[in-house]
Amino acid sequence: MVGGGEGAFIGEVHRFAARLDDCYELVAGALSSQPEKAKRSADALGIARHYSDFEAMAEAESKREDGIEVVSIVTPNHLHAPVAMAFLKRGIHVICDKPLTATLAEAKALYQVAEASQAQFLLTHNYSAYPMVREARAMVKGGQLGRIRSIQVEYAQDWLTHSLEQTGNKQASWRADPAQAGLAGCVGDIGSHAYQLACFVGNTQAKEVLADLSSWVEGRALDDEANILLRFENGAKGHLWASQVAPGNENALSLRIYGDKAGLEWHQEAPNELIYSVLGEPSQRLRRGNGYLSEAAMSVSRIPAGHPEGYLEAFANLYREFAAQLLLSTHHSDLPTLSTGLHGMRFITASVYSSQNNSLWVTVDG
Amino acid sequence: MVGGGEGAFIGEVHRFAARLDDCYELVAGALSSQPEKAKRSADALGIARHYSDFEAMAEAESKREDGIEVVSIVTPNHLHAPVAMAFLKRGIHVICDKPLTATLAEAKALYQVAEASQAQFLLTHNYSAYPMVREARAMVKGGQLGRIRSIQVEYAQDWLTHSLEQTGNKQASWRADPAQAGLAGCVGDIGSHAYQLACFVGNTQAKEVLADLSSWVEGRALDDEANILLRFENGAKGHLWASQVAPGNENALSLRIYGDKAGLEWHQEAPNELIYSVLGEPSQRLRRGNGYLSEAAMSVSRIPAGHPEGYLEAFANLYREFAAQLLLSTHHSDLPTLSTGLHGMRFITASVYSSQNNSLWVTVDG
Amino acid sequence: MVGGGEGAFIGEVHRFAARLDDCYELVAGALSSQPEKAKRSADALGIARHYSDFEAMAEAESKREDGIEVVSIVTPNHLHAPVAMAFLKRGIHVICDKPLTATLAEAKALYQVAEASQAQFLLTHNYSAYPMVREARAMVKGGQLGRIRSIQVEYAQDWLTHSLEQTGNKQASWRADPAQAGLAGCVGDIGSHAYQLACFVGNTQAKEVLADLSSWVEGRALDDEANILLRFENGAKGHLWASQVAPGNENALSLRIYGDKAGLEWHQEAPNELIYSVLGEPSQRLRRGNGYLSEAAMSVSRIPAGHPEGYLEAFANLYREFAAQLLLSTHHSDLPTLSTGLHGMRFITASVYSSQNNSLWVTVDG
Amino acid sequence: MVGGGEGAFIGEVHRFAARLDDCYELVAGALSSQPEKAKRSADALGIARHYSDFEAMAEAESKREDGIEVVSIVTPNHLHAPVAMAFLKRGIHVICDKPLTATLAEAKALYQVAEASQAQFLLTHNYSAYPMVREARAMVKGGQLGRIRSIQVEYAQDWLTHSLEQTGNKQASWRADPAQAGLAGCVGDIGSHAYQLACFVGNTQAKEVLADLSSWVEGRALDDEANILLRFENGAKGHLWASQVAPGNENALSLRIYGDKAGLEWHQEAPNELIYSVLGEPSQRLRRGNGYLSEAAMSVSRIPAGHPEGYLEAFANLYREFAAQLLLSTHHSDLPTLSTGLHGMRFITASVYSSQNNSLWVTVDG
Repeated sequence: MVGGGEGAFIGEVHRFAARLDDCYELVAGALSSQPEKAKRSADALGIARHYSDFEAMAEAESKREDGIEVVSIVTPNHLHAPVAMAFLKRGIHVICDKPLTATLAEAKALYQVAEASQAQFLLTHNYSAYPMVREARAMVKGGQLGRIRSIQVEYAQDWLTHSLEQTGNKQASWRADPAQAGLAGCVGDIGSHAYQLACFVGNTQAKEVLADLSSWVEGRALDDEANILLRFENGAKGHLWASQVAPGNENALSLRIYGDKAGLEWHQEAPNELIYSVLGEPSQRLRRGNGYLSEAAMSVSRIPAGHPEGYLEAFANLYREFAAQLLLSTHHSDLPTLSTGLHGMRFITASVYSSQNNSLWVTVDG
Repeated sequence: MVGGGEGAFIGEVHRFAARLDDCYELVAGALSSQPEKAKRSADALGIARHYSDFEAMAEAESKREDGIEVVSIVTPNHLHAPVAMAFLKRGIHVICDKPLTATLAEAKALYQVAEASQAQFLLTHNYSAYPMVREARAMVKGGQLGRIRSIQVEYAQDWLTHSLEQTGNKQASWRADPAQAGLAGCVGDIGSHAYQLACFVGNTQAKEVLADLSSWVEGRALDDEANILLRFENGAKGHLWASQVAPGNENALSLRIYGDKAGLEWHQEAPNELIYSVLGEPSQRLRRGNGYLSEAAMSVSRIPAGHPEGYLEAFANLYREFAAQLLLSTHHSDLPTLSTGLHGMRFITASVYSSQNNSLWVTVDG
Repeated sequence: MVGGGEGAFIGEVHRFAARLDDCYELVAGALSSQPEKAKRSADALGIARHYSDFEAMAEAESKREDGIEVVSIVTPNHLHAPVAMAFLKRGIHVICDKPLTATLAEAKALYQVAEASQAQFLLTHNYSAYPMVREARAMVKGGQLGRIRSIQVEYAQDWLTHSLEQTGNKQASWRADPAQAGLAGCVGDIGSHAYQLACFVGNTQAKEVLADLSSWVEGRALDDEANILLRFENGAKGHLWASQVAPGNENALSLRIYGDKAGLEWHQEAPNELIYSVLGEPSQRLRRGNGYLSEAAMSVSRIPAGHPEGYLEAFANLYREFAAQLLLSTHHSDLPTLSTGLHGMRFITASVYSSQNNSLWVTVDG
Repeated sequence: MVGGGEGAFIGEVHRFAARLDDCYELVAGALSSQPEKAKRSADALGIARHYSDFEAMAEAESKREDGIEVVSIVTPNHLHAPVAMAFLKRGIHVICDKPLTATLAEAKALYQVAEASQAQFLLTHNYSAYPMVREARAMVKGGQLGRIRSIQVEYAQDWLTHSLEQTGNKQASWRADPAQAGLAGCVGDIGSHAYQLACFVGNTQAKEVLADLSSWVEGRALDDEANILLRFENGAKGHLWASQVAPGNENALSLRIYGDKAGLEWHQEAPNELIYSVLGEPSQRLRRGNGYLSEAAMSVSRIPAGHPEGYLEAFANLYREFAAQLLLSTHHSDLPTLSTGLHGMRFITASVYSSQNNSLWVTVDG
């Protein structure tokens, strides 16, 4: 693991996720770039081999007989590319948090390095691994919604309503700093998740985007809210709202998708349910763990219906599936890849450009 | 009453609304332009004086000692302006359904006629008369949300998912016909309600809009879905989604509004509740009829908390307040006026223009 | 109307209900036993003929050519029997609020008077007139739930958590007074509604009950909470919880009913929905106003789906159906009758007796 | 681990729970009494030391230097007592699934063995380890509800609506078999959880119970539904409904508790929320992970608000706290003990006795 030392949030999540299904063992880490903190963090976690330099770690581990097979990258965004490159170049598989990188240029460079490597890459768009999200995707792919017309996706939080980054909060500080977060704030941090979710379930991606980004808090360099219109490759249209300044929202990622036959609705804060509405019929509440669900949902479900699974379980699904993929040398089509991440960076870049140009329609993969 | 004969929907709603609080008596009507149907409809409703020509009605009623004091206009949009003019010119008060007219030109002409008349005008944006919507507006005006930053409003239905207008359905037919509905379909029919709601609660109006309208059903001349970005006069930004092709949505008008202190959430299908979230505190569920609400909400509430009030009660609130206004010759600041309607037509016109020009930002009152 | 003068709650509800569908005209009343208040109340409502004595009213109205055809009784419980008798004896139809009377003896006496009269009787168990309650009953009768096994019904409020009756509150005062309310408090006031709802939807009635009543507030003579076990004639079992001392509950009447094929769930505070769960299938959310509902629900529905109907509309359904019954001289099988009320009094009596005898099982119709 | 081989449900849950926080290592097991299955199951899980006889395991492990410190018992109920005794006698700590035993006699015997042992005992009433349940308990203890008057608890499922035990389903078979499940079916399996939850949050226990048990499915020897009235030591009253035959219910454990100041409501299927209603104020939605919660809730919470935690996380809380207790030799007052389990067996026994005697009030600890 690189990153994820004391005070980190997502590093701990990755550790829970790795442990839950007993597919990984955490044996080495560069948990911090500060040597003392790196050691202290490693000791606290009982990690045998600790480094304060990711290059040194990549080099040393790649040389060991019992060196790591996979590294998890849980640093701020600007380090994703260099760290991933260091390991990919040495044939070590990479699990990397999103967004892929801080800038599109880095993403392209990383993509080239990965192309040349035998190692595999997983981008942890964890929300796409909830069972009922998998069910939704399967339903769209299976034609149960008919031709998709409209996608409404949103991701609202409130923790940055005030200037938290000026209070010493570690999570807020790096996210508000262009040098660490990259070209976008809210759009990169959570908009990227919302966009990936819409594409994943809708089984499509945006051709063009049009954005109006805002930065509401005085002194904040990056965006903290975004309204983005979407035109998808399959002809559907949509809207993405991402906000980190909406009081009353904790982690309110929601997706609604409508075809000419039926609609679906899913909410991350009630993840075990999927509302399915066929035109002219009563809405149905599909619930995780039931026999009427598809294999796509059942295969990522651990316990019986009515016993809520949550965020960690969804995160762990990615880890478990990636482990299976590595063992079986197969490709799991529902896992987010480096291509997913590269496209995501194009989306972020196009959104920022659109907003800077008074909300032009901008081609995403142009 | 003009319009509202056999097979009509909103005419019956107006009659319920007029009757509930015993402030009106329905004594004359031109319920249809077809004489036989006009008579048959009037007889069925026990209306003494029936006409098949609204001009004749306006003329005759204005001459009678016991002539009507107020007329309700519940026709398709293209008749709103001529009918309203006929009565306003003769000093008869007008209650008119929304949108104000079929085109902006008509709206301006009507506005001038109204300026010259002593008679008063009520536009039935009924959703703004729900008690908890009144509470929301009072809270925004009272500063409980702080400075408003973001407004998300939406109005989703599914009844036009397929081509209902080609099946003889009366409600669908006129709404899909530009000659009767005017320049917009979904934006005029329900987008106008959503927009008025956002402005009413946000205590502001849009300076600029940017729209992407769609017409999903083959052969449909007008829009049936719209994504519209908003920039408000008070500095807030927002998004309006209106759709009549979203399976699973019946009459899903919802508003969320966020300031730098707190947020509010209201859903028309659960109208007796308002969710109020102060940053850092548990969300509160404000419910109609409770002593902790403001006079703004309590004054439009009839029965105790927990006894749900609905759509007809909210509609009736407009009728009751307008009656009080006529009797007391005062002005009730929460009632939608002809100015509200004129601005609404500017919003519709700007949205259509924006969409026709690849989603330009367009000034609303320009 | 008898009762329902200044400060009353249910009298006003009856007036709204009578007016909504334009089937009744309110022309006479004994709104209070105090002459001045009776006159003042009648004047405020524009009621031409006022009385301060219900006997005088019954006598006078029965003699007039244009005398009333129907009387609504909205007094405290102890007056239901004498007032109803006065009008029934003179052939005037009666609409009476629940519970039927203050004591079982009165109920039996009233029943005999009614038997001898040509006039008809409606007991306003209004909750059974919600469209989705009618749908539920139709589903049970149609066998969609299979053999009924279990019924959980509850009615929770919080307005009597403290000793409101000692503060001069008119509604609380008479309900807490055995001389006016009768032998039960909470069980009579709201338990009777819950029980009727369970029987109405379950299409059965209790054979035996077992009760544990409580009176939590110091100095309160009657019960304010009840837990009652039920054994129904159709073999089902159940539980009824009624409370007026449960903080956070406004008017939380809920019913859940389970057969060996499916279950139903309905909540009065969200009355336009009915949750229907077939074993092994996703739950369905049936909603008022949709074409997939039965005639039983559609016939008591006024406006399209998604436009919420509420308490007053349900109450008005009883008035409208009773009017139709009087005009057509037919009997509407879904309307609560005097027999319903007599059985309800047996339920109340048996519950009180059971509780006084350390929760014996007591036969209801014994 | 004893039990939990192929086809088991709760054994896997215990393993997830043990692993999540990295406090346990699974090194030995008697996963089945069939030697081949025991070996196969152990191999599949990578467990080094496998036994097919729990006595042999207890003996062998107690003799090893590196023998297990704790055993998890996840067998059918009738084995809880003998297995627990075998390990307790040898000083090995026990984590045991609920209910404590199959009969009260066994429970008493086990209690005596435990008294004589240095080893500690944890009963996995996992629902009491949800953060918001801990919050609820802290609020009751802190007096925020005032004097407790009423507790409504329920636990509804539908998986035994039909005769699943006759289809070869392993989970259903032993639960329906008195020889394995003990004296009760539904009351023991899920009623015991519901009862413990009520006592845990209410900070009290029942003095007397009165029960009406049912066995709806033909040929089923044990109860599958129960309505139980409760009178608590603190003076509160309540009702417990447990059912395994209620279509539409997956694992619907819910608690509502009311005092003279406020009420609380919690639902296991939406476990991250707690509804708190102070009389006369808007209801508040307390949500896991927020700074306004007590230490009691925060200490069992892993990730930020809005990132749902679920069933496994709650289960893991017990494992984590028990590990801490063993390491620190302290006692954690929120952990269910052998005394909790013994009292639970008294509750089950009293309920069965009451029902067999036409619903007498029966003293629980008599």
